[in-house]
Amino acid sequence: MTPSAADSEFENQAQALGFDFNGEIKIGGNYAPVIQHEHQIYVSGQIPRVGDQVVVTGAAGQDVTLEQAQFAARICIMRALALMRNQLGSLSKIKQVLRITVYVNSSHGFTQQSEVADGASDILFRILGEAGRHTRTSVGVSQLPKGASVELDLIAAI
Amino acid sequence: MTPSAADSEFENQAQALGFDFNGEIKIGGNYAPVIQHEHQIYVSGQIPRVGDQVVVTGAAGQDVTLEQAQFAARICIMRALALMRNQLGSLSKIKQVLRITVYVNSSHGFTQQSEVADGASDILFRILGEAGRHTRTSVGVSQLPKGASVELDLIAAI
Amino acid sequence: MTPSAADSEFENQAQALGFDFNGEIKIGGNYAPVIQHEHQIYVSGQIPRVGDQVVVTGAAGQDVTLEQAQFAARICIMRALALMRNQLGSLSKIKQVLRITVYVNSSHGFTQQSEVADGASDILFRILGEAGRHTRTSVGVSQLPKGASVELDLIAAI
Repeated sequence: MTPSAADSEFENQAQALGFDFNGEIKIGGNYAPVIQHEHQIYVSGQIPRVGDQVVVTGAAGQDVTLEQAQFAARICIMRALALMRNQLGSLSKIKQVLRITVYVNSSHGFTQQSEVADGASDILFRILGEAGRHTRTSVGVSQLPKGASVELDLIAAI
Repeated sequence: MTPSAADSEFENQAQALGFDFNGEIKIGGNYAPVIQHEHQIYVSGQIPRVGDQVVVTGAAGQDVTLEQAQFAARICIMRALALMRNQLGSLSKIKQVLRITVYVNSSHGFTQQSEVADGASDILFRILGEAGRHTRTSVGVSQLPKGASVELDLIAAI
Repeated sequence: MTPSAADSEFENQAQALGFDFNGEIKIGGNYAPVIQHEHQIYVSGQIPRVGDQVVVTGAAGQDVTLEQAQFAARICIMRALALMRNQLGSLSKIKQVLRITVYVNSSHGFTQQSEVADGASDILFRILGEAGRHTRTSVGVSQLPKGASVELDLIAAI
């Protein structure tokens, strides 16, 4: 299948981030990375893991800066997109992203969870265009698996 | 279109809260306040923002009381309803609220997240009746965007 | 109706945990424990409540161990399954679990939220088999209703 515009832009973004998302996307624990059922696809919570390594850890506002947390959010959303692409064959199958929930490992005084989440939202728009419009919830949490700085999950219509 | 009973009750509740939810509902960040797709509508995480101002901030149990946090939850759900009304034309189009998730900015010892969320649930029942029955998850988080005391999102069938 | 394999395995798991999930499943607050709409079922956030008692409280990594938090997760998912069984008549009506979100009351340094959530995931697989495959998000939060150590909610296709 010829890569769609979305698939090509995915590769551009991966190159810009400096990571390769074409390999196996590892997850921890006893569950599925993606469930596709009828016209919906659910993606499990993604942390900024590259291969075996969680590359951004610690609390935003204390251990990591806003910019580093945004970078983490970009990796998370690229992982979510990679999982959907592997499942669907092409990102062009996504009709509409419905919801992303973004959990930001936050120090007590850090209130820029929405700005962190913009890192993920911007990539969704850039790669999927109108289909990448989405609702979003971003919250600050006290801790995340493996000490990750960001975790996000996603629901989309296909 | 004649306002439905739900639309009228929405106005009653807005008046009781002392805010006008008829203007533009501002959100921060690069995402959509509402996504309607086939028979579902998703609403982004709402904080107690009135115009440009977040009117209830800080941790429940420390900076704000249970009553103030409930008030915040009421504003959040009214914003969610206002967004759906703007999208659908009338609240009578809502067949069933499916889920609200309520995040309460909580001090360490505060465990009344469910009581805070009742502020939102009560309004849903009052305005939508049986269609306002919903499942709910309420959790305590360490921080929220702009320091808001409460954030909630919603999924409904239309 | 003859109990399905899933219904029988539910009883086995209940016996292994030492609790009876056949009575009324109490919830706090003004909302529905379960909403079934067309081909989806939503379950409200469940805490490890048995009868009137929340049996595992406090922060993982501080007040409770990983094993105790996993035990809490097992009770939560059994409650969710019991609610769906009561609603649907049999667990065999569940076609696919789509998503569970697991909130773990976590001390600052506790990063094994995914391992806690495995307690719930394992039971889903054991009782529902392939229909129990699910996406999952697990996060660490600063506090939960009634001081519970774990809360989880669920969406499934029926």
